Amino acid sequence: MTPDDARAPDTEPAGIQILPLRGAPEAQPGADLAAMALEAAATSAVSLRAGDILVVTQKVVSKAEGLLIDLKTIEPSDIALRYAQQWGRDPRQVEVVLRESARIVRMDRGLIIAQTRHGFVCANAGVDASNVPGEDVVCLLPRDPDGSAARLRAELARRTGLELAVIISDSFGRPWRQGIVNVALGVAGMAPLADYRGQPDDFGRVMNSSVLAVADEIASAAELATGKVDRTPFVVVRGYPYQRADGSGAQILMRSADDLFR
Amino acid sequence: MTPDDARAPDTEPAGIQILPLRGAPEAQPGADLAAMALEAAATSAVSLRAGDILVVTQKVVSKAEGLLIDLKTIEPSDIALRYAQQWGRDPRQVEVVLRESARIVRMDRGLIIAQTRHGFVCANAGVDASNVPGEDVVCLLPRDPDGSAARLRAELARRTGLELAVIISDSFGRPWRQGIVNVALGVAGMAPLADYRGQPDDFGRVMNSSVLAVADEIASAAELATGKVDRTPFVVVRGYPYQRADGSGAQILMRSADDLFR
Repeated sequence: MTPDDARAPDTEPAGIQILPLRGAPEAQPGADLAAMALEAAATSAVSLRAGDILVVTQKVVSKAEGLLIDLKTIEPSDIALRYAQQWGRDPRQVEVVLRESARIVRMDRGLIIAQTRHGFVCANAGVDASNVPGEDVVCLLPRDPDGSAARLRAELARRTGLELAVIISDSFGRPWRQGIVNVALGVAGMAPLADYRGQPDDFGRVMNSSVLAVADEIASAAELATGKVDRTPFVVVRGYPYQRADGSGAQILMRSADDLFR
Repeated sequence: MTPDDARAPDTEPAGIQILPLRGAPEAQPGADLAAMALEAAATSAVSLRAGDILVVTQKVVSKAEGLLIDLKTIEPSDIALRYAQQWGRDPRQVEVVLRESARIVRMDRGLIIAQTRHGFVCANAGVDASNVPGEDVVCLLPRDPDGSAARLRAELARRTGLELAVIISDSFGRPWRQGIVNVALGVAGMAPLADYRGQPDDFGRVMNSSVLAVADEIASAAELATGKVDRTPFVVVRGYPYQRADGSGAQILMRSADDLFR
C-alpha cells in the first residue's frame, strides 16, 4: 500500500450516506420507538448527528401503535364475502381493507386498489399480512403518520438534544411501472417537496415543472439499505441538505382532485 | 478532540454512499460520456470501484446522442396548432411531443401525458426545454436507453477494467402523488427488480407482493445528490449489493397492458 492509497479513504468525499440501524427487536404495542432507534444506532455504531434524517418503516410504527387486527374478530360483510369467494381471498381480510378505504379505485382479479382515509392510494388500503406475528393477524397504516413522525422527532430531540428530521416510509405500487418503491407516509422536520420553480436553469431560463418529491426519494434511498427480509426498521440518511420545516408533513404529497393522471 | 472523537470517522460504517461527480462540462453531440464521467470523478476526488453504480441523467445522454431539436425546423400539424392555441403553448413543441408519442394517455389543460415509443408514460413524452442551449431547442429521450447504458458500461469497463452498473435516470410525475421523482430509463449490469417473492418473512411466511423496483430507488437516491440547478449529470452510488445481470434492462420496469392501475 502506497501513502497515496492509505490516504484515499480520508480524502474521498462522504457524499450522502444511507446507514442501516441493525438489531432492533420486534416492536410490541406501546413500544418506545425513540428508545428502539437509539439502541439500534448504538448497536450499529452510528452516532446520530444534527441534520440526520431518521427513516422508519410504517410496519414498526403501526406495531408500536397497536394497529394489529386479529382477523378472528372480524365479521365480513356481504360484498367482502362475495369478492373473497370469487378470487380465493380471505373474506375477513377483504373486510378490513374495505373498512380502511375511503374510496375504491380498482377492484378486480382479487386485488383492491383503494384510497385510504388519509388520502393515500395503494394496494389493499395499506392492510398488510407480511412481517406480522400470527397467522390471522393483519397490520393497518398509522392513523396519523405525520403526527407519529412529529412525536418521534420530538422525543428524539428531547433525549439527544439533536434536531433531526423523521420520515415514516412504506412500499407502494405505481401505475405504469413494475415493482414497488418506498414513499413517505409521514414527515416531520423537513419540507417533503423541493420546489425549484422560478429558479433559473443552467442557461438562465426559469424552470416550470420542477417540484421534486424529495421525501419520497429519501424513503426510496433508505429502502436500499434495509432489504425486505432483514429486520431493519430504522435507517439514517446523512448529508442531504433538506429544507427545515416544522409545520409541514407528508399530507402535501397527496394530489388533489385536479390530478390529470387520475 | 479526544482520541475517541478522532477515531469515530473510521469506526462508523460507511453504509451506502451517494457521491455526486462535479465539474462536468456541457455535453456536445458526439461527446464521450465515459471520458466525461471519468474526468468528473477525478475532479471530485472519487475513485471508481468495482460494484459502483454510475447514475447518469437522461439529459446528458440525449445531448451526447445529438437528440436536440431546433423548433424552427418543425411544421406543426392541425391538432398541434389547435391545442397549442387553446392553452397558450408553443405549437411546434406540441408537435414534437405528438411525434414522440405512441399513445396519448391524457391531453387537457395544456398538458400532455403520453406513452413514448419505448413504453414510458410521462409528461410531454419526455420532450423537455429545460437545461438545453438555445431558446427554440427541445431535448428528446434517448432512442434506446438500455442500449445507451450498456454502451457506457462497456466503455467504462474497457478504460478502467472495472465492472460497474449504469443507470440512466429521468424525473417523472406520478399519479396520486405530488412532485416528480427520478426513475430509471435505462439499466445495464444489474437486475432492475429485486424479487423477494418466495422468501420467508421474519415470521417464516412467504411474501407475495414484494418485487422492489430497486433501479428506480437508486435513480431517486442519486437525484438527492444532484440538485436540479447544479450541473451534476453523474452520480456514483456505492455499497448497494445489487444483483449482477448482463442481459437485463429498464424495459422490464414497464407494466404490460394488464396494469390494474391503468
